[in-house]
Amino acid sequence: MLGNRYEDQDCSIARALEVIGERWSLMIVRDALFGVRRFSDFEVHLDIPKAVLSQRLSGLIKAGVLERTPDPDHKGRFLYTLTDTGLALWPVVHSLARWGRQFCDPGTANRDYTHALCGTELDLHAGCPKCGVTPPPQDVIALRRAHAKQPRTDRVSEILRDDRRLLEPV
Amino acid sequence: MLGNRYEDQDCSIARALEVIGERWSLMIVRDALFGVRRFSDFEVHLDIPKAVLSQRLSGLIKAGVLERTPDPDHKGRFLYTLTDTGLALWPVVHSLARWGRQFCDPGTANRDYTHALCGTELDLHAGCPKCGVTPPPQDVIALRRAHAKQPRTDRVSEILRDDRRLLEPV
Repeated sequence: MLGNRYEDQDCSIARALEVIGERWSLMIVRDALFGVRRFSDFEVHLDIPKAVLSQRLSGLIKAGVLERTPDPDHKGRFLYTLTDTGLALWPVVHSLARWGRQFCDPGTANRDYTHALCGTELDLHAGCPKCGVTPPPQDVIALRRAHAKQPRTDRVSEILRDDRRLLEPV
Repeated sequence: MLGNRYEDQDCSIARALEVIGERWSLMIVRDALFGVRRFSDFEVHLDIPKAVLSQRLSGLIKAGVLERTPDPDHKGRFLYTLTDTGLALWPVVHSLARWGRQFCDPGTANRDYTHALCGTELDLHAGCPKCGVTPPPQDVIALRRAHAKQPRTDRVSEILRDDRRLLEPV
């Protein structure tokens, strides 16, 4: 078995991968950037076993990427939201999305990311070329650019299908 | 067992992670950006079993991230170098390194990345704030900023310890 540590690799990239390199972790961060906050919503959207999801959420909380607060609408349940450390992963997620869009399967659904204040598409590095700033995720609109051939039909996918501002709660 | 596909996730981030999300894959891309090209050099620097390294290199070649050419200095051996698709992962690796440096273990060795033409440190998004361009990796100098407490002593680590231009062959 390969572990999830890179103990002998003394490098900040290795440290970052120990936090978010495990399978599904970055997909959870992606969903959180798109406003998913509830365990049941991550579960239905990611289609992963409860135990795996639970373990990943705990790991991300322990690493300071997510925080867990009581869900005001469901007694005994929780909301999982990105901390400042987690929000700082936006450039990582954005650069991966752009690379995937450019070089991986062209039949995949994908999005344009635009600056909410001026509507300009972000550049490769998540900057707004018109305003000369790098907007934080809450100032980014994700526009559906290409649709999936066989779209998912779970309720979270239906909500996320439309154009939406990042971090807007599902 | 969790596989390495995200078949039901219709999203360019999922596609990207299928290519580079597997354990060690992004560490191989990192090493390739730092000029590592030989199987034996990846092996000694990453400390991973030959079989795992071999499988990851094959996967990255199949995905178009690396290419394999005969090693002119060692008959029967090969050089593994980044294709244009692989070089386009630089913003992903850079953003991970910056995030790891800022938020993960502060005791880890890490580097500053500067623009070779003017010496200015790159911003969070791998751009040169002075020149207003985003330098390709061959125009980036990696400066050792913090040293490891217990540095690795393999020959590749010794070579990579100093300041160096990205893609300069080891």
